[in-house]
Amino acid sequence: MENYTDLNPGKRILLGPGPSDVHPRVLKAMSTPLVGHLDPDFLEIMNETREMLKEVFQTRNELTIALSGTGSAGMEASLINLLEPDDKAVVCIAGLFAQRMADIVKRCGAEPIIVEAEWGNIIEPEKVRKVLQENKKIKLLAIVHAETSTGVRQPLEEISQLVKEVGALLVVDAVTSLAGIPVEPDQWQVDAIYSGSQKCLSCPPGLAPISFSENAMQSIAKRTTPIQSWYLDIGMLQSYWGKERFYHHTAPISMIYALREALRLVLEEGLEKRFQRHQLHSRALVAGLEAMGLEMVAPPQYRLPELNAVYIPEGIDDLTVRRALLHDYGIEIGGGLGKFKGKAWRIGLMGYSCSRSNVMLFLSALENILQQEGYSIAEHGILAAQEIYQQK
Amino acid sequence: MENYTDLNPGKRILLGPGPSDVHPRVLKAMSTPLVGHLDPDFLEIMNETREMLKEVFQTRNELTIALSGTGSAGMEASLINLLEPDDKAVVCIAGLFAQRMADIVKRCGAEPIIVEAEWGNIIEPEKVRKVLQENKKIKLLAIVHAETSTGVRQPLEEISQLVKEVGALLVVDAVTSLAGIPVEPDQWQVDAIYSGSQKCLSCPPGLAPISFSENAMQSIAKRTTPIQSWYLDIGMLQSYWGKERFYHHTAPISMIYALREALRLVLEEGLEKRFQRHQLHSRALVAGLEAMGLEMVAPPQYRLPELNAVYIPEGIDDLTVRRALLHDYGIEIGGGLGKFKGKAWRIGLMGYSCSRSNVMLFLSALENILQQEGYSIAEHGILAAQEIYQQK
Repeated sequence: MENYTDLNPGKRILLGPGPSDVHPRVLKAMSTPLVGHLDPDFLEIMNETREMLKEVFQTRNELTIALSGTGSAGMEASLINLLEPDDKAVVCIAGLFAQRMADIVKRCGAEPIIVEAEWGNIIEPEKVRKVLQENKKIKLLAIVHAETSTGVRQPLEEISQLVKEVGALLVVDAVTSLAGIPVEPDQWQVDAIYSGSQKCLSCPPGLAPISFSENAMQSIAKRTTPIQSWYLDIGMLQSYWGKERFYHHTAPISMIYALREALRLVLEEGLEKRFQRHQLHSRALVAGLEAMGLEMVAPPQYRLPELNAVYIPEGIDDLTVRRALLHDYGIEIGGGLGKFKGKAWRIGLMGYSCSRSNVMLFLSALENILQQEGYSIAEHGILAAQEIYQQK
Repeated sequence: MENYTDLNPGKRILLGPGPSDVHPRVLKAMSTPLVGHLDPDFLEIMNETREMLKEVFQTRNELTIALSGTGSAGMEASLINLLEPDDKAVVCIAGLFAQRMADIVKRCGAEPIIVEAEWGNIIEPEKVRKVLQENKKIKLLAIVHAETSTGVRQPLEEISQLVKEVGALLVVDAVTSLAGIPVEPDQWQVDAIYSGSQKCLSCPPGLAPISFSENAMQSIAKRTTPIQSWYLDIGMLQSYWGKERFYHHTAPISMIYALREALRLVLEEGLEKRFQRHQLHSRALVAGLEAMGLEMVAPPQYRLPELNAVYIPEGIDDLTVRRALLHDYGIEIGGGLGKFKGKAWRIGLMGYSCSRSNVMLFLSALENILQQEGYSIAEHGILAAQEIYQQK
């Protein structure tokens, strides 16, 4: 046997697109010795987790659970439970994660109808209206609320109205929005919504909070073909999390411990305060970046506070800067994905990572590195950020 | 907000069908602060995990990874990547978990051909031979190596030969066997094999170690239809875990920390010693149970040491006994599944749970409770168990 050393990863400040930093209380919860997954104590923990998830999702949906997979499993579960072969699904694409939705729709044997926008822009509701008028019998429309590849918030409320006018189902990716900006599935008549544990919930990755409306469940009940996945069959999962406790799979106990604690932290802070915190620190960060002369990707009114995408200044090498941030400061930020590879950075301020200390440290580090690389800053970013905090 | 208390589940000794008790070193690893999932330090941790998984699986298969889901996700991934609509798959069924395989085969649009045996028995190789002769163009045969619902080890080596004679692929469920009894996919020419983290590996549930042969990958390359799952598409997962590091999903970082530590513990002990330890403690347990007059479900030569299924004595109520074990001793054992509900108990001695102290405590607790319930034991179980340990 080769000699494998003790686990000893570097110390990091996670300011990328997720995972975000995890609160010590969550880490501690995860190290709690296990009980069985059908133990009365664990069933109570599942119940509490479900109740807290409902509060964080601001929903009354009975079927609100944590899937035993990452956010991508949530995406797949939402689509494959609702779609049957030959169904039509409108997919709104303005970034990488929405492209995946179209891929999954095809794997269901269903037909994706694409509404596109340039990366970094919103999906124009007018375009959606046109597509919904031109096509008959649309089963659902799928949209990414907060596109992690561009930092853009999509105009969900307007698009929801259009979807409901034609009687279609609405599927929403809230991976990067939940617990960072308002997410209100009941208000917005969302039929299936999912998130990931490692973004604004600041729990380690591995679970996908998910919620299905009554309407969605009725649609599933009318299926004439089987759901293609056993693992992600939402009816079976409901029986496992519900009163029946019908054994399905073995819940990832330690991850549920972690999620329960992360949800407690969210509710202790309060959703409204948490949203304000994300707004404040993002405003300071953006003020700092713009003062230095950098340009944000998303238009101000649709900018996500928890994921700040910014163009890399001309002449500056993406990897050199990110490596210096990681090696000299232990700071992780995200590179660009897809079309934005080498062209944009993605600076996450999610959950426990979203703090004044992190904003100030990051701006100071970035300024330093950019100057070393020969970039001449317009003004000092840290001073502009401080001004925001002083106004508060 | 309702007041949710600090996490405080009861203290347990996990002697059920999994999860098993988790070593303190694994719990500690899980509470390590996170790095990003594309961080150079994490990529190294993934590499090490993959290398250790290969050692534990005793395989050279390049595609050996940990799926971001539980053992059931491993089952689904193995079948859906290899099967296309209208393919024929022989499924050997002698327990609950094999039934699931047939369910998944159907959800692929493929045709399951069932070879059955009574629960608690082995699948007779002769029956398999007949089915393989009677049916042309069999794509694969799927079998559960260690059936968690019955405690029976299936005669994999003999069945493998028959499968290979007709040129079909072999899919093996090693959820309960890996790291508890010998599992040798290369030797046995297995094409897809999967396990769960929470059994004899003594890691929390949430990951599915999985390994595909070169032969399996060639078969996947020849597919004419897409793999129905994006999340479990093994080609994409290979690119994520492999040199390309092509972003797929966000790996469950803390769970990988845990698995790495659990694998280290397995390799430090050594596979051979670990198998012997499982044999020894199971022999002591069985000697104790039989001394008290109880009857084991599985025939001795096919009995799993890590999962000891025993018939509940007549006149004794299943739930009363299991509740007393849980409440008075903090011991969890498993009830019967499916046909064995109320008729058998499943006593797990897996990984870190498999120890002399646990065997002795359990036998003493069970003897006590059975006597309280009016059962008159033949002989003292603890004395019979002690004799086994003294022979050693």
